[in-house]
This record gives sequence, structure tokens and C-alpha cells, in this order.
Amino acid sequence: MRLPETKVLRDPIHGYVQIQEEVIWKLIDTPEFQRLRRIRQLGGDLEVYHTAEHSRFAHSLGVYEICRRVVNEVPGVKETLSLLEQKAVLCAALLHDLGHGPFSHCYEDISKTSHEDITQWLILNRDGQVFQVLAKEDPALPKLVTDILAHRSGCPLAEDLISSQLDCDRMDYLLRDAYCTGTSYGSFDLERVLRTLRVKDGILCVKRSGMHSVEDYIMARYQMYWQVYLHPDAAGYELLVNAFFERYAKLRQKKQNRVALLEPIYDCIFDPRRFYLLDDFSVLSGINQAQFANDPVLADLAERIINRRLLEWKNESDLPNGPAAIQMLLDQMEQADFDPELYFHRQTLRLDEYLPYREENSIPIRILDQEGGQEALKNLSACSTVVKALLEMKETEITRLYFPKELKWPEQR
Amino acid sequence: MRLPETKVLRDPIHGYVQIQEEVIWKLIDTPEFQRLRRIRQLGGDLEVYHTAEHSRFAHSLGVYEICRRVVNEVPGVKETLSLLEQKAVLCAALLHDLGHGPFSHCYEDISKTSHEDITQWLILNRDGQVFQVLAKEDPALPKLVTDILAHRSGCPLAEDLISSQLDCDRMDYLLRDAYCTGTSYGSFDLERVLRTLRVKDGILCVKRSGMHSVEDYIMARYQMYWQVYLHPDAAGYELLVNAFFERYAKLRQKKQNRVALLEPIYDCIFDPRRFYLLDDFSVLSGINQAQFANDPVLADLAERIINRRLLEWKNESDLPNGPAAIQMLLDQMEQADFDPELYFHRQTLRLDEYLPYREENSIPIRILDQEGGQEALKNLSACSTVVKALLEMKETEITRLYFPKELKWPEQR
Amino acid sequence: MRLPETKVLRDPIHGYVQIQEEVIWKLIDTPEFQRLRRIRQLGGDLEVYHTAEHSRFAHSLGVYEICRRVVNEVPGVKETLSLLEQKAVLCAALLHDLGHGPFSHCYEDISKTSHEDITQWLILNRDGQVFQVLAKEDPALPKLVTDILAHRSGCPLAEDLISSQLDCDRMDYLLRDAYCTGTSYGSFDLERVLRTLRVKDGILCVKRSGMHSVEDYIMARYQMYWQVYLHPDAAGYELLVNAFFERYAKLRQKKQNRVALLEPIYDCIFDPRRFYLLDDFSVLSGINQAQFANDPVLADLAERIINRRLLEWKNESDLPNGPAAIQMLLDQMEQADFDPELYFHRQTLRLDEYLPYREENSIPIRILDQEGGQEALKNLSACSTVVKALLEMKETEITRLYFPKELKWPEQR
Amino acid sequence: MRLPETKVLRDPIHGYVQIQEEVIWKLIDTPEFQRLRRIRQLGGDLEVYHTAEHSRFAHSLGVYEICRRVVNEVPGVKETLSLLEQKAVLCAALLHDLGHGPFSHCYEDISKTSHEDITQWLILNRDGQVFQVLAKEDPALPKLVTDILAHRSGCPLAEDLISSQLDCDRMDYLLRDAYCTGTSYGSFDLERVLRTLRVKDGILCVKRSGMHSVEDYIMARYQMYWQVYLHPDAAGYELLVNAFFERYAKLRQKKQNRVALLEPIYDCIFDPRRFYLLDDFSVLSGINQAQFANDPVLADLAERIINRRLLEWKNESDLPNGPAAIQMLLDQMEQADFDPELYFHRQTLRLDEYLPYREENSIPIRILDQEGGQEALKNLSACSTVVKALLEMKETEITRLYFPKELKWPEQR
Repeated sequence: MRLPETKVLRDPIHGYVQIQEEVIWKLIDTPEFQRLRRIRQLGGDLEVYHTAEHSRFAHSLGVYEICRRVVNEVPGVKETLSLLEQKAVLCAALLHDLGHGPFSHCYEDISKTSHEDITQWLILNRDGQVFQVLAKEDPALPKLVTDILAHRSGCPLAEDLISSQLDCDRMDYLLRDAYCTGTSYGSFDLERVLRTLRVKDGILCVKRSGMHSVEDYIMARYQMYWQVYLHPDAAGYELLVNAFFERYAKLRQKKQNRVALLEPIYDCIFDPRRFYLLDDFSVLSGINQAQFANDPVLADLAERIINRRLLEWKNESDLPNGPAAIQMLLDQMEQADFDPELYFHRQTLRLDEYLPYREENSIPIRILDQEGGQEALKNLSACSTVVKALLEMKETEITRLYFPKELKWPEQR
Repeated sequence: MRLPETKVLRDPIHGYVQIQEEVIWKLIDTPEFQRLRRIRQLGGDLEVYHTAEHSRFAHSLGVYEICRRVVNEVPGVKETLSLLEQKAVLCAALLHDLGHGPFSHCYEDISKTSHEDITQWLILNRDGQVFQVLAKEDPALPKLVTDILAHRSGCPLAEDLISSQLDCDRMDYLLRDAYCTGTSYGSFDLERVLRTLRVKDGILCVKRSGMHSVEDYIMARYQMYWQVYLHPDAAGYELLVNAFFERYAKLRQKKQNRVALLEPIYDCIFDPRRFYLLDDFSVLSGINQAQFANDPVLADLAERIINRRLLEWKNESDLPNGPAAIQMLLDQMEQADFDPELYFHRQTLRLDEYLPYREENSIPIRILDQEGGQEALKNLSACSTVVKALLEMKETEITRLYFPKELKWPEQR
Repeated sequence: MRLPETKVLRDPIHGYVQIQEEVIWKLIDTPEFQRLRRIRQLGGDLEVYHTAEHSRFAHSLGVYEICRRVVNEVPGVKETLSLLEQKAVLCAALLHDLGHGPFSHCYEDISKTSHEDITQWLILNRDGQVFQVLAKEDPALPKLVTDILAHRSGCPLAEDLISSQLDCDRMDYLLRDAYCTGTSYGSFDLERVLRTLRVKDGILCVKRSGMHSVEDYIMARYQMYWQVYLHPDAAGYELLVNAFFERYAKLRQKKQNRVALLEPIYDCIFDPRRFYLLDDFSVLSGINQAQFANDPVLADLAERIINRRLLEWKNESDLPNGPAAIQMLLDQMEQADFDPELYFHRQTLRLDEYLPYREENSIPIRILDQEGGQEALKNLSACSTVVKALLEMKETEITRLYFPKELKWPEQR
Repeated sequence: MRLPETKVLRDPIHGYVQIQEEVIWKLIDTPEFQRLRRIRQLGGDLEVYHTAEHSRFAHSLGVYEICRRVVNEVPGVKETLSLLEQKAVLCAALLHDLGHGPFSHCYEDISKTSHEDITQWLILNRDGQVFQVLAKEDPALPKLVTDILAHRSGCPLAEDLISSQLDCDRMDYLLRDAYCTGTSYGSFDLERVLRTLRVKDGILCVKRSGMHSVEDYIMARYQMYWQVYLHPDAAGYELLVNAFFERYAKLRQKKQNRVALLEPIYDCIFDPRRFYLLDDFSVLSGINQAQFANDPVLADLAERIINRRLLEWKNESDLPNGPAAIQMLLDQMEQADFDPELYFHRQTLRLDEYLPYREENSIPIRILDQEGGQEALKNLSACSTVVKALLEMKETEITRLYFPKELKWPEQR
């Protein structure tokens, strides 16, 4: 049902987030969605860009807003999607991150459940408020929303909008992360991209005249990977968090050093009341308390996380005497009583795994081009020489070594 | 001691926060200061402007950066302040918000201690890391920093920079709150203000040519008051939080419904280890848990706070039949079993208490003007007709009534 | 007629200017409108803010775009205006500045014709392309457009959009001038203003919740007056231009020192072919040539204009010995052979003539308020204490004295 | 000589342009430099991005400001450059575009003189004011400034700052053109680039940690080429201007259709008084007048330029029947009496000629890296996989056909 008057939420990226459908307004008010106020968009990056304190709540509303504009402004979308599908894709945009736990990947490891699976459960759980709001609007809606999110809806256009190499999710987070970190890297020309999107044969594509804007978007993604998301100190923070939970799990099995706030991590799944209690705020408070745990190693790791005593790091390639130096470092650690499993990390990043765009094993971005006076869909790399060059990038890797700042790297500087 | 190389933190408002002194770098790394990452700058405003999720950590660094620029760029400051005073004023800028508790004013009410007093204690506590960092730099520094913050340093210029009607604190929060809410209201021309600041007879003042920029800054403050800080829904959220803690305190006296996470509120004072645990994250997590408390009123209030079920409000002046309607509302509340002490609120705002600038009972902003070929300090209102008009604004007040959305305002619309 | 596809022009203020009607697209292509590329928005201000090089072409497109958004987005506009009136108001927005000559006010003085009268003539001239484009769309259009511009259309809503205290013209130029000067003074929240505009009883008004945004817009106007439009050096430049044309006219009567490029100023009126040749570019080129004129005074004035040798100025109130000093200055001028009629100027600005808003002798901005449960229109000053204070500002004036930099102000400094 | 107080000019890109040296302040006031107010930065691009109306005056001040910041902020610059060289490089930054004529390349073709040569002449001409200001500051300055501009100063660092693949010129124009067009393509993180610049062995280089910012800058350049500078309609406008001057030259030889305003193009060289009269304003005014020339072809070309009746264009590769279609088009042109030399153009762009960065036949950007614990300079492409991929881009070309809109492309669509 249409709201009698558009409701708006102020947003620095989009000016306003505009709510026109009652179902969207009610979804925002569910406890499942309000919980996202307490789940942050970025993790360790916050240790490098201290102003990037934004939540998945703000991001999810932004994804919804971009999707709303696509549905309303891009020629062909309303013709391709049924009214129910239009509603469903907007709901999917809003809800796509619903299942994220605290310290995202870390929680997935512990719970052995992907956030996508939890999202599905949260939407389909008949006792949940999200389900009830969706089902009241249309009984077919909960399933359709989860089908779009899981790429089994049979509606490729809707799925492309939510999760593809040019989707509303990426568009919002690039712009939002750039805004909140105070960097310009993630900026691209959203208005131009929106103006050149088209639908051809039921597939989302970009007019030839918008190709350069898409290149720009891809380069924005590349920059955000290397300047923000893969920053060595961000990764170092997450290594500390992982080490903390490894130690905690070990002690937990011996029923030692339990912290009440951290327990929902281990038992909340599929219990919505417990799940609402599980967020970055409570887990960070738990780690904060763990500074006073009996186990000195757990307490030490907690203290490093809370007070930003990050690990030191070096690029392995910068070390002339790598293996020997590593051994000397490990010797130092033994003497200083640091468990290398928790305090020493060798992390390799393969550049080709962080390509901002790929066509192999992925659905390419399509360009709507003219060929012999006829419209034709082409892969982006067939039109853009820059993107073609990117895809031919030779595989390279970076290996970083992490260790406590207290130790000295064994070499003259 | 000067750092060998300036260290920088990215910031969307200032480009970079530049750290040149070792003492500043070390203060940032103390647990007392890192705790500010978990204390938010805004409270109920976040319910209206959902993107305003920034912490006092980011703000404090911003205040420091503006202060650093004033010390380095404004002619006369380095000539007026000794080297120790220069260092102290930078430390004071960084640390001025150190004592803020969760839900700022709410915590001050419960603890019956102002955040200024806690700040003083945190800085002067010999066991604290802040004290040790300061004292190691110079034994006189802890006292001098607290004296500047408390306006008893005998150094008016340093005190003006930290707390006056044109101080680094206000300049940063106006710009930052505007940026994070996504509104333009708080914007003013910081560069121009900085360029026209001067020191005359040991007092901070503004060159005549910068007067309009100061007017602009004052109007920015006015706009932020009325569009953000005093927004009816922001105030409504804080009324709910107050009601929650009122109920909690009542039950607590009977030793009922205690929530472990909330207890530090009542006993952390002057125990730094406990104080580090006290922040918005832990208290919100505690309120979150209180949704499942035995007491149904406490649980209801918690649920409204967590899930943003705010109170409804009306301007009393818009009600033709005010008193009668209020009585009918109270009758409804009794029937529906709402305790009016917790669920009905009548809040009056006097506009003259929220003037963005005043000269009565306050130190005016001074303009450095020419008079008969000579420099002279004048009060801002003596130069600016706009500010003069503002100060002559007749007293007005707004009264708002708050009540649960479930009730119907007893009138035909 | 609707265009088959919306055409867009990139614009830094509005993102895109969107053209949906064929008549607008064709008007942009007329020589009358293209001429505005060579007429600048600002005059002497450019001597202070050197980046403010934008033309009335860009501004006119911006006014059109704001008007287009109002027609499409503000509830009640389409219901109030007939289809023809909607088209006419868009055309009027686009064409409102068509008759501006070079050095705007200066040209009006010389030609003894207001730019509004020339605009009317350009639109109604049956041989002009603007007339033909309009008449082809609808024979009634040329007259309706000029009637709206001249406030005699009988359609107050359309007239308000083009010329009132809250019109599309002012909204665009404040934002654009701020952007191009690089100052933030003129910024206000256009999105919020647009969202709170309403139509009540055929009159444009602002919802109560948008009142603070309107205050902000009025203060932006105030700041632009005093920081940009009335800057002493901007005024000084215009005094030089006036002096140049005074001298030129005097010589011209004697048939001396004629510059071909400047002649259209005196004889282009009501001859469109001549009028197309009359713009800032040709007149500045003419003044440039006049540096090499035989008359040394004309050449000197030209050289000062072209090479930015502006007049010196002082505030009369800053001078303890005003009248005596002025006399000594005039004596100096006589000795140095400066004609005081051309080189000495005493300019008085009355602040109440540059109020950013007024209700006396003007149609007030209306606020749509609730009163006793009913909607009612109120004057802005009845709602806003800040605006009320502004209107009560006591009359003040500033007098500035201008004279050549070569002279020394006769006093010790 | 240092100015007693820093003078500032407001600028939207840099906040303020700061003038600290008297010689810079006086250079700005010379007629040679003030003339740049009447030379635009962009040519045909203005027909596509109508708001890009900025002059080389604003740009030159911006280049100076970036250079000033490099000299003051980048470690090693002041140690490497003598005081005179520091002054000279600032003057060179300010004056580097002094010799640009109207319609830049077009004027170079007609005058058969590069703008660089004219700049040299303007600076070294002993009667010119620029020479006098420079020589008064230091007799060696005029020669040193021209030597830096001509890459024969023997001071590579100074030359790199003015003209290299990472120079102050490009940095300013990318940011400024992006700002004025209202696109974001040209944006890159100037602050970050400035913070990571270093000097090693007398050569300007970039710290490894700034490498991604340099990639971003290179991609900004790439985007500006393809979205702005090489836009088909911008090129089409310049083809019209070239055709106009070809026709004008032909008639001129026969002493026909002379336009006084255009004559300085042919005879101003090395006569400064004439040169001051030669700018975009006067030449555009001349073309404007040429609309009324006797020669109908000249008049037609003038009218197309002034009223933006651009040529139509097609990508040759989009035409299935290219050669046949071209022939039919030429036939049409003959019938319609269009001279194909003036009205038909086939323009080929080779992508490898518009690479945003190259290392072959160019001095590469150098990265300051660690190798075996030692600092080492490496070529950018040796560090950046993205740049390496760009350099390996296979040669591609685009061919566009231009012809009057009146003709129909001979094919069914």
C-alpha cells in the first residue's frame, strides 16, 4: 500500500531517503531492522579511518534508496517487473544485510553460518516481525524476497539490482564509506550511472555513453580495496579479534573465563530473542570486560583490541633476510612468552582475488551498444580498453608479517 | 617533545588531523581517550538524523586540530602563550570531553556529578595513564590542563580557545554534526574565521573584516539548535531514557530487575577500571537486555528505546482546547494503565535560553575595530546590527506535550 | 510538446538540468538565449572573487531547473496552473534575464531602459526567434510569458515562482554565486525548501516545518549582500566603469575617441541584430581598446578597469577628521590633475535598503501553520522570531570614500 | 621580498590562494597576467559543459598555489632549491600559460608560433611589465623563470614541478575543470598526493604509501580525456572554428570581409600592445560580427559557432556501410552547396596518444620504495599493477565523421 505522503529520512549521500510504500516504513520499525543500528558497516578499517563509524542501518537505507530510484527512473524496469516484484526488490534491498553478526566474518566463522543464511532465516521466521510485515502486505512476499536474495527467483533483473557487479549495495557502500572515512577514493558519478542504466531483454545494462562512468565506478572499488578495506592495520585489528576468540573458545570449552555478553555468540542462532541481543555494541562491551579476565592472555588480547595496541607489520618482500629474520622473531616470541599462534601472523593477499571487476566465473557488466545500426549487448571488457587491461593484470601477491610491537624486527635499520 | 615526523589522521571535516607533539600522540593512545570511541556525540538526535553516529573521539580530535591551527596560524597566539601553555591548551582541547558518561545529561543526573568534574578527576588521577603521559612531558602539565578547563589558569587566551562563545569545541561540533546529519545548517566558513582571528591585549578577537563570518557562525548555531538539537523527537527519546532510569532506580532500591551492564552507572565513579567499562555501548546493551526484565513497565520502556517507538507529541499552542484535552488524555492513560509520571511529559523550551549568542552574563565575542585611526575592541553586538537584533529578541516559549502513540489525542482532526 | 527523451545538461548546482519540453530545448538554441553566454552574472564582484566567472546563461538554466522541480514536485502546483500556464512559467524562468545588457546597471543607465523592458521586447518581437519558438508552441505563449514576468498575468502562483521574496531566481543565484566564488555564505538547504513548499488558496507558501530553512535562506541572502555583492572593491570597480562611460559620452558628443565596439550601446535598442552584438565580451574588448585612445583621461580609466587598478576606499566613520581630510584630499587631486567628478566618490549604503527580507511594501513569505486545528497562512515574521528581529533592525548606514591609490590619505597612520 | 602580511584570494579548489612574496603580488597586477582573465581554460568543452566558463587567470593562480604548498610543505624541496630557485619556480608556476592566445591551438596554427614561445617572449621582453617586476626582484630572475619553463635550467626539481607527468599544472586543471564542469571525474586526493611527495637525489618522487593516490590521479586524467576533453561535440566545435579561420584567411588574402577585431591575430606577435588586445573575448566578438559578413560561407560558419549549431557526428565503426554512406553524404553536400573541406571532417583519435600516463619517451613518475632495507627510486609501472596494465593497453582508435545537421545520414535507422 502506498503511504498517503512520502516520508523522508535525511541522508548525506542521497539527500533524502524517500519512503513511499507502507511496507517499507513498517519494515524499518521492526526490531530486526533496528538492530542494524548496532552493527557497524566497517570493522578494522575504523582503526585506520576513525570517523567511519557508520552502521549497516544507514547503509541499508541507502541501498534501498538507490534501488527505489532505479525502479522509478530507469526506463524498462517497471515494464519488466510485476508490481509484486517491484515491491519485493525494494524489500530485498532494505533487508539484504539483516543477518550480519558482530565482527562480520569473525562471527560467521564461530557460528559456522553465513550471514546470508541468517538473513533468510530472519525473513522467513513466522514469529518474526519482518515476516509478519511482509506477509501482511502480500503472503507471497517473504518467499519472493528471500528468493531474490538467494538468486533463485527466476527474475534476473531484480537479482542484478541486489547482487551483481553493478548493484545497489556496492554503489551505496562505496559512496558511504568514502564519505565517512573522509577520502574521495570511493566517489563515482552515481547520477550519471543511474541516467545511463537500461533494461534490454530483461537484463540490466548500461548505455554506451555511460561506459566511462562504469569504469570510474570500478576504479573507485579498486581504490577502496587498497586504500581502505585491505589496509594493513585494518587486517591487523581483525587478526587480533580472531586471536581473542580463538583463545576465548579454548577457555570456554574448559568452562573458564566466560563473559556473559559474549555467550549469545555461541547460542543465539535461530532464537530471535537472543539474536536481537547480539551486536557490535554488546560484543565490544564483552571484550572490554574481558580485560579483567583471569586468563592473562585473553586479558592481554582484549586490552590490545580495546585500546588499539595493534600488531606491527612488515611486507615480506621488503625484507632481504626474510626466513632468517622470521626465525629470530619467533625465538624472541618464545623468550617473551608470546604464543605465536595468537601473536604471529603471515597473511598473503593475492591481487587477483581483489579485482574490482571480473568476467571469468562472474556475470559481466553489459554495455548496450550499436552494431550495424542495431542494439546489441556486449561485455564491458569488449568495449573498455581500460577494463580489458585490468582483466589481463598478471597475478601478484603481497605477504605481510604481523607481530607484537614490543618485539624488535631483528635487523639494522 | 616534537615527533620526528608529523603523524596524520584522516578526517572529513579537516582533511587531516595533524599530530606534531609526542604528548598528543601518547594521549590518544590512553585507555581514557580510546574510551571516547564508545561515547557518542549526539543522543536522541540520532533518532531523527540516523546517520549522525559519530563519537566524541572523532569530535575531540577535531577540536584539537582547530586549536592546533589557531596556535600555529593566528598572529599573536604564540607570542602570548608560553611553550608550556601552548602544549597545555592543545591537551585541553583534546581532553575536554574525557569525562562524558553514557547518555550524557542522563548520566550526570544519576551520578550527581558533572562531566566536567569527572574530566578533572580523570586527568589528575595519578594512577591514570592520562596523568602519567602529561606528567612525563612536564610535571606542571596535568594541573595546568585542568586549570585551563576550569577557567582558573589565569590565562584567558587559552581558556577562550577551549570554552567561550567562539571556541574550538563549538566550531568543530557545528561542522561535524552538520556533516554527519547530512544537513547544511551547521556550516560556516571556518577558514575565514581562522584567518580573521587575532589576539589583542591577551584576548582572542576577530578582525572587523571577519565580522560577517562570525554572524554566519552564530546563525549556524541557531539553526542547529532548532533543526537538530531541540528536535521534538530527539527530546522525546531522551524523555523515554529518563523514564527508563527512573523506573530502574526505583526497582533497584528494592533490589529488583538488576542488569549487570547498568550497574557501573551507580558505582563507577572515581574507580577508573570501572569507569572504562561505562559507555554508550554497554548501557545500550543493558537497556537491550532489560527488554526481557520481569518488570513489565521497565521492559516496555526498554523496548520503546531500542526499537524507536517514540512518544507522540503536540505543540500546546496548536491545541484550541488544551487543558480539557490534557485531562481526557490523562483519563485515557489511567484506563490503559500508563503511569503518567513515566509516559506523559510537558516540556517547555524558552527561546531565550537557546540563544546562539548572548552578551548578558557572558563574555562577548570581541571585534577588533578601528576607531579614530586606533585599534579598539568592541562587543560584537556593537558592530553587527544582525546580532544586535538577535539579542533584542523578545522572550518566547514553546510547550510540547508527549504521550504514547497508542493513545488518541482527544479531538476531531 | 514533450520530447521523446529527457535531455540533460550537466550542472554543478543541480546535478543535471533536465529538459522535457521541446519548446524549452528550442528556446535554448535561439541566438537571443545563446547571447547570455556572453553576459556575466556578476560584475565588480569578479574583481574580488576572481573565480566567479559564470554567465547568465548558466544561471538562467538553473532558474529553469528549480522551477521545473517546483512544478513537478510541489503538491498543488499542477492542480493550480493550467497546462499552458505550466509551460509559460517554465519559459519565463528560462527567459527572465534575456534583456540584460553588458555591465548590467551601467547599461540601463546609458540606454535609459530597464532590462525588464528589453526582455519584454525581445520576447514579443515578431521577427525574433524566441517569439517564433514560443508562438509555434502556442500562439498565446509569448504574451503569457511576458505577462508573468511583468506581474500582470492574473496568476499569482506563476508570478511568485519567477519573482518574489522566495523565487527560483534568487534560489539559483545564491547557490551558484556561492559555488563560483568559493564561499559557503550563499548556501542554504534547497532540498528542504523544495520539500516544504506548498500551495494554499493559489498562493505559494511554506509548511511550518520548513520555516527554519527559509530563515537560513534569508540569512544566506544577507551574507551574500555583505560579503560579496556589496564588497567595497566590487563597488569601486563599478564606480570606475561609470566614470569611464561618463567620460566616453562627453567625448562622444564631440565625436571624439569613438570606439566601434562601444557604439552598439548607444544605438542597438530595438534592433535585434545590433543587440546580439552587445555583450560583456564586446564591451570589455572596447574598453580594452580605449586604453589607446587619444584622450588621456579616457585611456587612464580604461587602463584601470582592464588591469584592476581599483580605487582606494575608506569608511567615513573610521576617520576622526573626516571633512578636513576630504578637503585635503580634494586639494591633492587638484594638484595631481584628477577630475574629482570621475575619481572621487562618496557612496552611502543604507542597511535597510539591503535587507534580505522585508514585509513592508512587499508581499511577505507565507507560512502554512495550524491554528486551532485548522490550516492558516501567516506572514513569516509572525512565526519566526529571528526574522521579526531582523525586520526591527534600526536603520544604519555606511559611507565609503573612494579615491585613486596614488593619493595618500592625509593623516598619520 | 616577503610581504608584511600574507594576502589571500578566495578559491573554490584551494580555499585560499596565499601570496607571501611581493614579486608574486606584483606579477598578478601586470597587464600581461590580467589579460588571462579573458582567455578561457577550456574551448569546445564549454559547448558540452556549459558551466565550465573559467579562465586561465583562475587556473594560473591555482597552479601557483599548489606549487607554493609543495615548496613549503614537501620535505626536501627547500633544501634542494636555492632561495632564488624557489622564487623562480613560483613565478614560473604563475606565468606558465601567459602566452596562450584565443582558441589556443587554433591561434598557434595561424600564428605558427607555440604558446610556449610567446610566453618566453612575454617574460623576456624588456619593455614588458612582467620583465620589469621580475628583474627588479632579482636581475637573474627573468632568465631563470624562462629556463625552468623551457627545461634548460639545470634544476630538474623545479622543472618537474612545472611540467612533468605529476606537475602542479595538471593537478590544478584536473580539479578545477572537474569543479567547473560539475563532474566528479577529475577529482583525486590532492592532500594525500601532497603529503606523500618527497625529494630524493634532487628528483621529485612519491612515497610508496602514496602510490594509490597517484594511480587515482592518473585515472582522473584518463576520465577527463574521455568524458570532457575529447568529447565529440567539443571536437566538433573546434572543427567549426578551424573552418571559420580557414575561410577567413582565404578571403583575407583577397582583402575581403576583414573584421577589425580579428586582425590582431595576424599581426600582434612580438608587439605587446597589440597582444594585450588579443583574447577570447575580442575574437568571439569578431566572430559574432562576422555573422553579418558579405561572404555567405563565412557568415554561416560564424553563425554556427555563435549560436551553437554544431556539426552532427557518427562513429565510423557504428556504420555497416561506411564508405558507401560517406560517398552518398558527399553527394548530398555537393547538391546542398556545402564545401566538404569546411563542412565534412573525418577525425581519428588514437587511444595510445591520449594515455593519461606513459613511460616510453617520457620521464616516468618515480616511487620511493624500500628495497633490502634501503630507499630506492622505481618507475611507477614497476610498482603499480594497474598502471602496468594501462601501459600494455593495445593500440585502438576511434574515427568520427562530422557533417552538418541539415544533411541526413544516408541509411534507415
